[in-house]
Amino acid sequence: MTALLESYAQGAWYRAPDEGMPLADATTGETVARLSRTGPDVAGMLDYGRRVGGPALRGLTFHERAAALKSLAKHLNGLTAEFHALSHRTGATRRDNAFDVDGGIGALFSYASKGTRELPDDTVLPDGAAERLGRGGTFVGQHVYTSRPGVAVQINAFNFPVWGMLEKFAPAFLAGVPSIVKPASQTAYLTELVVRRIVESGLLPEGALQLLAGPPSGLLDRLGPQDSVAFTGSAETGAKLRAHPAVVHGGVRLGVEADSLNCSVLGPDVTPQDPEFALFADQLVTEMTVKTGQKCTAIRRAIVPEHLADEVVAAVGERLESVVVGDPAQEGTTMGPLVALDRRTEVRAAVHRLLGSAEAVVGDPERCSPVGADPQRGAFVPPLLLRAGSGAAEPHEVEAFGPVSTVIGYRTTQDAVDLAARGRGSLVASVVTADPGAARELVAGMAPWHGRILVLDRDDAGESTGHGAPLPVLVHGGPGRAGGGEELGGIRSVVHHMQRTAVQASPDTATAVTGRWTPGARRRDAGVHPFRKSLAELRIGDTVASGRRTVSLEDIGRFAELTGDTFYAHTDPEAAAANPLFGGIVAHGYLVVSLAAGLFVDPAPGPVLANFGVDNLRFLTPVKAGDSIAVTLTAKQITPRANADYGEVRWDAVVDNAEGDPVATYDVLTLVAKERSQD
Amino acid sequence: MTALLESYAQGAWYRAPDEGMPLADATTGETVARLSRTGPDVAGMLDYGRRVGGPALRGLTFHERAAALKSLAKHLNGLTAEFHALSHRTGATRRDNAFDVDGGIGALFSYASKGTRELPDDTVLPDGAAERLGRGGTFVGQHVYTSRPGVAVQINAFNFPVWGMLEKFAPAFLAGVPSIVKPASQTAYLTELVVRRIVESGLLPEGALQLLAGPPSGLLDRLGPQDSVAFTGSAETGAKLRAHPAVVHGGVRLGVEADSLNCSVLGPDVTPQDPEFALFADQLVTEMTVKTGQKCTAIRRAIVPEHLADEVVAAVGERLESVVVGDPAQEGTTMGPLVALDRRTEVRAAVHRLLGSAEAVVGDPERCSPVGADPQRGAFVPPLLLRAGSGAAEPHEVEAFGPVSTVIGYRTTQDAVDLAARGRGSLVASVVTADPGAARELVAGMAPWHGRILVLDRDDAGESTGHGAPLPVLVHGGPGRAGGGEELGGIRSVVHHMQRTAVQASPDTATAVTGRWTPGARRRDAGVHPFRKSLAELRIGDTVASGRRTVSLEDIGRFAELTGDTFYAHTDPEAAAANPLFGGIVAHGYLVVSLAAGLFVDPAPGPVLANFGVDNLRFLTPVKAGDSIAVTLTAKQITPRANADYGEVRWDAVVDNAEGDPVATYDVLTLVAKERSQD
Repeated sequence: MTALLESYAQGAWYRAPDEGMPLADATTGETVARLSRTGPDVAGMLDYGRRVGGPALRGLTFHERAAALKSLAKHLNGLTAEFHALSHRTGATRRDNAFDVDGGIGALFSYASKGTRELPDDTVLPDGAAERLGRGGTFVGQHVYTSRPGVAVQINAFNFPVWGMLEKFAPAFLAGVPSIVKPASQTAYLTELVVRRIVESGLLPEGALQLLAGPPSGLLDRLGPQDSVAFTGSAETGAKLRAHPAVVHGGVRLGVEADSLNCSVLGPDVTPQDPEFALFADQLVTEMTVKTGQKCTAIRRAIVPEHLADEVVAAVGERLESVVVGDPAQEGTTMGPLVALDRRTEVRAAVHRLLGSAEAVVGDPERCSPVGADPQRGAFVPPLLLRAGSGAAEPHEVEAFGPVSTVIGYRTTQDAVDLAARGRGSLVASVVTADPGAARELVAGMAPWHGRILVLDRDDAGESTGHGAPLPVLVHGGPGRAGGGEELGGIRSVVHHMQRTAVQASPDTATAVTGRWTPGARRRDAGVHPFRKSLAELRIGDTVASGRRTVSLEDIGRFAELTGDTFYAHTDPEAAAANPLFGGIVAHGYLVVSLAAGLFVDPAPGPVLANFGVDNLRFLTPVKAGDSIAVTLTAKQITPRANADYGEVRWDAVVDNAEGDPVATYDVLTLVAKERSQD
Repeated sequence: MTALLESYAQGAWYRAPDEGMPLADATTGETVARLSRTGPDVAGMLDYGRRVGGPALRGLTFHERAAALKSLAKHLNGLTAEFHALSHRTGATRRDNAFDVDGGIGALFSYASKGTRELPDDTVLPDGAAERLGRGGTFVGQHVYTSRPGVAVQINAFNFPVWGMLEKFAPAFLAGVPSIVKPASQTAYLTELVVRRIVESGLLPEGALQLLAGPPSGLLDRLGPQDSVAFTGSAETGAKLRAHPAVVHGGVRLGVEADSLNCSVLGPDVTPQDPEFALFADQLVTEMTVKTGQKCTAIRRAIVPEHLADEVVAAVGERLESVVVGDPAQEGTTMGPLVALDRRTEVRAAVHRLLGSAEAVVGDPERCSPVGADPQRGAFVPPLLLRAGSGAAEPHEVEAFGPVSTVIGYRTTQDAVDLAARGRGSLVASVVTADPGAARELVAGMAPWHGRILVLDRDDAGESTGHGAPLPVLVHGGPGRAGGGEELGGIRSVVHHMQRTAVQASPDTATAVTGRWTPGARRRDAGVHPFRKSLAELRIGDTVASGRRTVSLEDIGRFAELTGDTFYAHTDPEAAAANPLFGGIVAHGYLVVSLAAGLFVDPAPGPVLANFGVDNLRFLTPVKAGDSIAVTLTAKQITPRANADYGEVRWDAVVDNAEGDPVATYDVLTLVAKERSQD
């Protein structure tokens, strides 16, 4: 395979007319593929994304997009052997493949699941509750997110050719925004293979994903205020993008995720005999060696109590001895080469700078004897542990993007926080401690400087996913040097691709805009009891207004006896009279909602299958013996479930008393059959 | 009063050594005050904010900060007469003062209220629920927001010297971040007066608010990744800030709110006889004349059905005839002068450019006869309505920052959306229509281009706060040309000043970090029933685990009879057996939670005063006759109320069956006395 990589542009594979430049196997130096120096028509790709991909995606609901992601994830999951095999050529070991290939597919599964469970089956996403803007209730505010009619340009780094693409693509897709993926040169062949399999699957709408295999010349200049750029890479390139006219003047949204000098802090409470000591050393070795240290989340700084620094160095050194550097495709290899020879040159240069204020305590940067591979042809480097004093500047400024970490001692907890902050903003930190007080202090001090903090201890070590692993459900990104961007985090990154707009309107119009019934909007007399309507027949706003029922002292007494809830406010007139909120016997809140159910329920079998929950129940006015109550139930939101013959209906419930005061407000959640049964 | 304005810097009023430049009364041209050309020591101010103001603010909980804002709002509310009097000199009428002065104080009240109701009484703000990261439940993820240990620099525009300051200050203060306010030159004297009154009040911690009355020379260069800049002003200056090295390389967060070419769209359904037609014309006149059109939210483009354009022009022209331009301090004046003579020059220049593709249909830019004022000394301009064809470019590009608007015709709804989008991103739009379908279509199409959209109709007109008025509870800002920033929106803008961090930890550590009990964390046997503990005695994690109770068929029958909830799944064995989810008689969900209350309630009078609500109730496993249930209740969050002798306790409730399956999970909300009574 020495083919020229192709771009997937405007619905077809495009082969550039030039010969391209060779991309080398990280271990053998052989040419794996060639990458065009000219590339496709970027203006055409942008136009195609906006004109074809965007409308197709925006025509799908969040649930339909989530279902497409799930199908895609399943499809790719069946093809991992092929991806793993090619991935070895990037220098990735089996363990590394689990992060990149399997982790990327995992992100698709995660977004499919979040999209179904946390987003409506609609194209507009309400943000928060309606705000009442006037006393009369005729004017409300409702924030909504809508899909931007632009293109999401994704510029990825070389170290995660699969995960890097999929973790950016999935949230954009779910948001209804088409992606143009620009992989890094060194490992573009693996990204191209995965995109090829995606395209072949036919599972995505045309235009939802395009691949730019070649230089992005002129791409940024053509972006506008509805487009975005998500960049992962060096702080230097990130700064260039920030200063680009499209960003400065053109309103293009830019997210930057840059390599940072992440740290791991060993807590002040830990002794070498504690399990946390071993956990710290084990994790540091893992983070140094996974992906041969080519991870923007790797631990670059090991911040440890000064008096334990020697012991930490010894423990880490001992563990590093068993690292097997060699051919990444071989079973026993635990660390492969860097991705390319020029990266080795850069790592060596960075180490040279670090050695200005640190000393090498484990490993020799110039010597490496890989197993089953030629040390001249492959970009091999040994793991290297440095040690620096607390005053050294370089460990907080210079990143060796390889298996290199520096041990730095601290005295007080505040010292540790200050040292962590000297990285000027990082993607992630870990704190290894068994002391909750130390954890709170360290996390509170370090959190403003970090996008993620892992607190590792004996309790969570067994299930910990590790310092270096971003998870789809948690945000990934950090302030300052780390770029200031934010990716992943479940739905948090979906809305980054959407515009938040405050809509001010009458409740009826707010209902029409959001597809969700807004308090104050018209209630529709459904003709029949709405519990007799199937999901297909039910309409937003369908209402049942019950008759009234008087709550008697006997009801309250019988309820107390039946349930055992003999709280004095329901049973003891004298004590209840002394309660500052009630001033006398009141009905149980649970009695009120139970009676309300008695008032609105339609008892015979029908499309409503079950009540599966209640949200936001508030008791607003006490109900006393002799008060009469009625309930109004209104269909608020309808959400079919894709793989069931029923769906969810959220009902707005208001219980009031004879004076018209609201007694209780809540949402009732029911499961309702999609179709009425024929009998 | 021709004093040199002073800066409030490092805890003292600072008077610069230079003579300063004169600031002129908008109506008379007299010098109101002088503004220094040198200004104070900005490095010292930044250091003071970080060293003194930040720690003082971060030492307060959200509720304490909210209480300070409320006290401040009340204090300033008593001083409005003084502010209004000085505000007239900026050209503001009485109506304008209501927006600037009263609106600014209103923002303080709003943030005080939101801070108390929507934030915890703590310094760390959890974001979303805990995510379970492993099957065993020993490893969870919890997003938290923490206050940035930096300074919020606020660069305000001349048109809202009070509101502009307070709407930026309030969210930063609530977030625990100190502010440095840089007012615009022209109206800095009013900002200085308000800051003077704030400082005199002694209601804010020292260092929480500093005023920079002078040039901000060198300020930006000294900012770092924990600092932010919020800028309101021209797109041109916004672009300069974006390209500043502190932003490009230094990790400074920048929010820009720029003037935009906002539009108001008259719906395709509206006829001249509809009330919406008059509402559209009335609102347009209001937006042209409030603040003499010097509002970043004013309507610059009136997009109307082509066939109604003449009638719209006539209706607006008629209304504009009754506008009284003159001395803003006079009772009958409805529109004052622009803020300064040089602004008039700029407005005239912009109108000249607009006239390249539009014609003036109401008003003459060169002629103005203000009532009770000298047209030469005051910066008076008349309201001016233009009309342009749908192909004209200037109306979508040139902003005359004065009482100027352009009428443009459209044919189809999609035309209207496209014309709106030609502004390339605006702060706000309004849509005037009585047709919910047209509203949905227009809002869906226009939302990605706008931060706020008002849908005006006969139903909400009476309570509408109007196109031009940002509200504290709704976001203010827009994409593209509008700057891409976002302010206000309740707590949304508070968290802009904080760092979001994903914390991964054991449930116990997550509890320690967030101050909120996390599922899976240790439960504490409180020794006594936790309902016997006052708010002062109760601890997060205090638990009561109930005994078991068997639910009998008789219980279900009695409950159905008592409540009237005779749904077949509880009463009819044969029909219940046919239910796909139950397969037989099940207990009512409300019975389960009522019995659970019977199991956990401690009946005698004590510190627990009432159950005021339930959140997130989910029924997970059906309870059948013969099943036994037990409930575990754990104190999850404790929130004292400032002005009551009780507070809120949120309890985690889990009901399980004898097999250990969760039957129902929910949060119980109670009111608990702060102290135990002595008897």
